[in-house]
Amino acid sequence: MEISTPTLLVDKEKCLQNIEKMLRKAHRSGAELRPHYKTHFSAEIGKWFKSKGITKCTVSSVSMAKYFAKNGWDDITIAFPYNPLEASELSELASKINLNILIVSEESLEHALKNIKSSVGFFIKIDVGTRRTGIDPRNERLIEKLISKADKKMLYRGFLAHAGHTYGCRDVESVKWIFDGAVKALTQLKEKFGGIISYGDTPSCSLMEDLSFCDEMRPGNFIFYDWMQHNIGSCSIEEIAVCLACPVVAVHEERDEIIIYGGGVHLSKEMIVEKNLMGKDQNCFGKMVVLEKLGWQTKVKGNVVRLSQEHGVIKLSPEEIVRVKVGDLIGVIPVHSCLTADLQGHYLSTKGDRIEKMTKH
Amino acid sequence: MEISTPTLLVDKEKCLQNIEKMLRKAHRSGAELRPHYKTHFSAEIGKWFKSKGITKCTVSSVSMAKYFAKNGWDDITIAFPYNPLEASELSELASKINLNILIVSEESLEHALKNIKSSVGFFIKIDVGTRRTGIDPRNERLIEKLISKADKKMLYRGFLAHAGHTYGCRDVESVKWIFDGAVKALTQLKEKFGGIISYGDTPSCSLMEDLSFCDEMRPGNFIFYDWMQHNIGSCSIEEIAVCLACPVVAVHEERDEIIIYGGGVHLSKEMIVEKNLMGKDQNCFGKMVVLEKLGWQTKVKGNVVRLSQEHGVIKLSPEEIVRVKVGDLIGVIPVHSCLTADLQGHYLSTKGDRIEKMTKH
Repeated sequence: MEISTPTLLVDKEKCLQNIEKMLRKAHRSGAELRPHYKTHFSAEIGKWFKSKGITKCTVSSVSMAKYFAKNGWDDITIAFPYNPLEASELSELASKINLNILIVSEESLEHALKNIKSSVGFFIKIDVGTRRTGIDPRNERLIEKLISKADKKMLYRGFLAHAGHTYGCRDVESVKWIFDGAVKALTQLKEKFGGIISYGDTPSCSLMEDLSFCDEMRPGNFIFYDWMQHNIGSCSIEEIAVCLACPVVAVHEERDEIIIYGGGVHLSKEMIVEKNLMGKDQNCFGKMVVLEKLGWQTKVKGNVVRLSQEHGVIKLSPEEIVRVKVGDLIGVIPVHSCLTADLQGHYLSTKGDRIEKMTKH
Repeated sequence: MEISTPTLLVDKEKCLQNIEKMLRKAHRSGAELRPHYKTHFSAEIGKWFKSKGITKCTVSSVSMAKYFAKNGWDDITIAFPYNPLEASELSELASKINLNILIVSEESLEHALKNIKSSVGFFIKIDVGTRRTGIDPRNERLIEKLISKADKKMLYRGFLAHAGHTYGCRDVESVKWIFDGAVKALTQLKEKFGGIISYGDTPSCSLMEDLSFCDEMRPGNFIFYDWMQHNIGSCSIEEIAVCLACPVVAVHEERDEIIIYGGGVHLSKEMIVEKNLMGKDQNCFGKMVVLEKLGWQTKVKGNVVRLSQEHGVIKLSPEEIVRVKVGDLIGVIPVHSCLTADLQGHYLSTKGDRIEKMTKH
């Protein structure tokens, strides 16, 4: 691998193992896996899913849906609230593929009914406690009203939920508490109104053994995982499938810090607060690991404590810092792989192959 | 303007005013303005600087230097520590344009001397207190040694500093305190060793009236400014020249929040902690304003309190929320315009023209 600038390494073997593991859980639970592609943004990586029998996917924007449709995906759910300003683009896309959209209010549905010209499926987004978007599951009058408006062109599919507040959890018990509440609410709705249950979020799908309450699982992050998921308990360090290779540009032994070429425009400014060895709060923007010929070691060597636009500052122990020199390449496990992936123009496989992805234009 | 997805609006008039104001200060101080282009990433916006007589610029990466060199800029300083892994690309670029690099250690300089094949200028990066990179100004022995290694191919230019710790300031007194320390350290070095002083950071360059101690000013953010600069006191709200137009996809009157299409992949996760009206800490990821036909109003209507990948959550007063509906476009003043700009595929001028920029590939 000839790397001279910050480059996201993707370990295909780990990705395939992560896919297989999630797929086994889906099979055991009798649920279909409709993975979210907002983590990898890549038609090439979509093929890895296809090789395991996956034929449906989830995306988070119309532009992402168009990208994957162009790359052969013909059954896509856009798991983001219906945006009235994109009605004509949705109409065009829905005339070509099986498309599902998300309805979060009566106004949205009225607008979609009037302005989407092709046949499209819709899910009712249920807020299971994240307080981002979605309808309160107790608001059955509204839910009933929405379903009653379905017609031959606008087909009711069921209930969709994303328990995004599991990202605030730091142990399996808290995730289970959130999960149990969501299961109860969604199961009651399904019994009363019919349709399927589509359920997502990587912590729940990774940590809960039995997902048989739902018909469809929509995790995304699990293909790569990251340090945040590791902190929640969703994965082991060994399962994290991405690592940002970064050049070392300065070594400051006097303060146990090295400076890398790798900043907010490469990793994103996503940050978690952790306890350091002294029990004090420390900001973590990523974890340093040692790169190897075909990947990286899984022992954490240091903590990315600060990021500016292009620089990263890594705190290392005095024993570790003497092993690092200017011109070396080190690895950084991202805090949030979806946002890190978004910032890349392409990825590099650990075998040295360039992996194309969706970019902005 | 036909906008249906999150789009960064750029007010050219405000940008030109910001350039002129900084240029007047440079003239008064007898310093040359070598603006940093890591804020706008755009050849088109580079032309706005050129129209005001600017002929030299600063960038933060080799790829950015190549982009601007291709677009007619032939005198560029890369204000990022020399990366040994990019020596051959630097050699090639330096054979075509006047290029300056940054040296932060003896190892870096030794490597550059051996591996850069074309004539290149170098600045010695001085750490004026940011503790990111650079040499302690008291380390005169090292500084002397570095300068003595200059030769006909590797030309010593002077001292370069970036007082990035002014970004932690919230008033002009704190900025002045940092500034005075930097002026003293750099002036002493220049008197002793010669060369020029190149000084950057938008807070100092905006807030200090007299920059005559330096030969070259390198602010970047000032062309756009942003909410962080406004909080520091570097600019008025009226001077902020960018605003992200975002569709409203949900209105939650029951909790005084609206949901916009506009998340971490559009604004970046850069965040500042502010006091809300009740005196409590609140996270701010941006400020909501009302869009107009050719721009935006400058009265803040709400605060972006949370961001996920594609969603933004804005807190609004009960009086304001009733004026917003699904399908509207609202504006968000970014917290950090450089990172927001990096995330765009292109910009839109407030007159409706597409503005091309550097993208990742």
